Amino acid sequence: MHASALSKSTSSTQRLRAAPTAMLEALKSRFGANCSTALVVREQHGRDESPLAAPPPEAVIFAECTSDVADAVRLASEYDIPVIPFGVGSSLEGHLLAVQGGISIDLGRMNQVLRVNAEDLTVTVQAGMTRKQVNEAVKDTGLFFPIDPGADATLGGMCATRASGTNAVRYGTMRENVLALEVVTASGEVIRTGTRAKKSAAGYDLTRLMVGSEGTLGVITEVTIKLYPLPEAISAAVCSFPSIEAAVRTTIQIIQLGVPIARVELIDANSVRWVNKHSHLSLREQPLLLMEFHGSPSSVKEQAQTVQEIANEFGGQSFEWATTPEERTRLWTARHNAYFAAIQSKPGCRSISTDTCVPISRLADCLLDSVAEADASGIPYFLVGHVGDGNFHFGYLIDPNIPQEREIAEQLNQQLVARALSLEGTCTGEHGVGLHKQDFLVTEAGVGAIAMMRAIKHALDPKNIMNPGKIFSY
Amino acid sequence: MHASALSKSTSSTQRLRAAPTAMLEALKSRFGANCSTALVVREQHGRDESPLAAPPPEAVIFAECTSDVADAVRLASEYDIPVIPFGVGSSLEGHLLAVQGGISIDLGRMNQVLRVNAEDLTVTVQAGMTRKQVNEAVKDTGLFFPIDPGADATLGGMCATRASGTNAVRYGTMRENVLALEVVTASGEVIRTGTRAKKSAAGYDLTRLMVGSEGTLGVITEVTIKLYPLPEAISAAVCSFPSIEAAVRTTIQIIQLGVPIARVELIDANSVRWVNKHSHLSLREQPLLLMEFHGSPSSVKEQAQTVQEIANEFGGQSFEWATTPEERTRLWTARHNAYFAAIQSKPGCRSISTDTCVPISRLADCLLDSVAEADASGIPYFLVGHVGDGNFHFGYLIDPNIPQEREIAEQLNQQLVARALSLEGTCTGEHGVGLHKQDFLVTEAGVGAIAMMRAIKHALDPKNIMNPGKIFSY
Repeated sequence: MHASALSKSTSSTQRLRAAPTAMLEALKSRFGANCSTALVVREQHGRDESPLAAPPPEAVIFAECTSDVADAVRLASEYDIPVIPFGVGSSLEGHLLAVQGGISIDLGRMNQVLRVNAEDLTVTVQAGMTRKQVNEAVKDTGLFFPIDPGADATLGGMCATRASGTNAVRYGTMRENVLALEVVTASGEVIRTGTRAKKSAAGYDLTRLMVGSEGTLGVITEVTIKLYPLPEAISAAVCSFPSIEAAVRTTIQIIQLGVPIARVELIDANSVRWVNKHSHLSLREQPLLLMEFHGSPSSVKEQAQTVQEIANEFGGQSFEWATTPEERTRLWTARHNAYFAAIQSKPGCRSISTDTCVPISRLADCLLDSVAEADASGIPYFLVGHVGDGNFHFGYLIDPNIPQEREIAEQLNQQLVARALSLEGTCTGEHGVGLHKQDFLVTEAGVGAIAMMRAIKHALDPKNIMNPGKIFSY
Repeated sequence: MHASALSKSTSSTQRLRAAPTAMLEALKSRFGANCSTALVVREQHGRDESPLAAPPPEAVIFAECTSDVADAVRLASEYDIPVIPFGVGSSLEGHLLAVQGGISIDLGRMNQVLRVNAEDLTVTVQAGMTRKQVNEAVKDTGLFFPIDPGADATLGGMCATRASGTNAVRYGTMRENVLALEVVTASGEVIRTGTRAKKSAAGYDLTRLMVGSEGTLGVITEVTIKLYPLPEAISAAVCSFPSIEAAVRTTIQIIQLGVPIARVELIDANSVRWVNKHSHLSLREQPLLLMEFHGSPSSVKEQAQTVQEIANEFGGQSFEWATTPEERTRLWTARHNAYFAAIQSKPGCRSISTDTCVPISRLADCLLDSVAEADASGIPYFLVGHVGDGNFHFGYLIDPNIPQEREIAEQLNQQLVARALSLEGTCTGEHGVGLHKQDFLVTEAGVGAIAMMRAIKHALDPKNIMNPGKIFSY
């Protein structure tokens, strides 16, 4: 999408729907202090981590329970006004922007554990609970929730964008790890999808339809997820490589051999440099793979040996091990802060993030040509990737006041997406479509599949009040 | 569902739509010898493995490519006549019955491999290919497709019913193993869902919506699935137990400890007796677990040791090992033939099959009470189960000429489903809803979720021509 198309989809093609005074009064009357129209609150709820901007929502509802959400949606439906669910604001594609006006429903106060079923490896939580809160709540059970998109996002938000992250190569994404949901529909009705049974063939898979729907089909209010036994042994290792290609080819072999590695993250030399500075580390300033192995002690040893042998063949250094939990946490925190470390390297910059994902055999083709293009562009960038899944992110660091920089970055993104699609991949592995990838989605899915998606949207949200303007431009 | 409700949903509530002569002529003209109206062909395509019956479809189209399917659907749409996709006829819930008339599209000739991508662990096949054909086609790659519902079903059929089976405890179900589809929509358009990328956040998950839609939203014509490296080591073992309860409690502990067992199947003493006779085996005629371990030699050994220790605690015998591939195949073939072995024990009988699935901690509660009820009923039955997933099947062996037997069996099924739902489970783990579980589905999902499913059905198939009368009664 060109910069011009981008600004178009955040403004001119979107119909702003102003909430009538009567609705705002009804919200105030129903929610009291839990309905805010203060500008600072609205502004905080009208942006995310994307470089996109739009006027803020007209009001923010702080929901404390499912019936708060249902009542707010019913009022919005009555007045034909958009509803935008809000978790912690960590999405990256403009998902939270009130491009057609409307109200924001903040679910952050709905952060209670409802049922821990340790013996079934499941937990049911309110949708406003964050992944770290979940792990804190279940830590005494010997279980954990592995999905880790970096940000401490809410479970509702992670469902809505079909999030994944560093552990997905072993544990899957939200697609594979959500068993059941409670959802407030566009008419304000409360429904349940799925059960706690591990598998089911009972009708349409509404759970999987909601996962990844970006708030456009309903507001997720409860989430039942799978937990996993904490591995008996965990080892993390850093391995530096002479080139990105060597790191990527190592990754491809790891996956093709079926090594059940838990995490395998590529960090390019730019990122390593900035991460070292930001997190006071002294990693070798070369491309590296940051890996983690989970299993029994013997299985972890076996996995690590296999991977070290593969790495050696491509010129990888000896592993540097992070053996204590503290060292591991320090490394992974540094990885998760790569984005912020990069941003700080160029004061005032914004990052245009890419999110392509390709079949593992196509990873080198997709990635290396895009590195060459980024190098040639002169735009500073960082490159990190969940490469075990074929998913990686460039962050092009642009000065928002220099339109040419944004145009170059969008051009690079466009070339990358075109390449990924030609290699049978997707324009978005985990960030979602939001405002920014709508044209890409049409190219990827084709007009027939888009028509099917739109038909579903129209059937489930005939007034188009559920996060309108996201995924599709109307 | 009572026997009365059952016969109702297969006849009186369904509106029979007769194909006009012009349509049959148009089909003949388009498909020539690949369109059959011979009674024997129609009858063969108008039944499945369920005890349900309905008049046969009016014509059978033998499709040889996607455009054959698309043309047949377009003609059906033009004349407002039902379309029922047919694979090998192994479904169990009346999915293939022409309860509203219409034509059957047999995809069995669409059984070609389209693309093997061994380096990505994926294969793309035509939907009429069976799972054994797939495994035969990829056997030189060192990879295999694990999903094994027993019957040698087509991939299209397995998608449509969200099939799983014996390997699902380790490898997941069709929900987790389908990457992409080609689908002919209700208007005869051809769309693609998903890509070969391992994960994606690109819009609504149409792939997962189609998987489990039982032919009611479109005809699946191509399937891209995940493959897995053939395990370095495979061991299968039989372990006999003094009671069903002991076998079930062993299973629960195996799962709760996180042992990555590949298969763990319960076979009750009745089934063992019939299987011994049918397959010329001499298994101890007690409840048993038939297990399989996959992994590196050391991991397989570790898993087997852990499981043997657990089994010992519950009075399990020493494992009897099937070490050669031939012995393993013999055991699993015997397991898969349990249904036929049981049927043959009572000449002329039909089996009413149950398919509940509950969270693993509820398995003993759900199963043991239902065993007691079945024992008390006097109806002969067999019991087999993918117990590692909390999924099991009773087969109540009834004389179709004795209405009271069917009524008793349906009553047992009803009690079992009510129990499973009260234990947070599902009425169908893998067989689907079809004609037989529609009332159960409403109880399980709730009217709100059913309304959402119906809205989707109506949006994607406004003329209600895609396998109408299945999942929902209209």
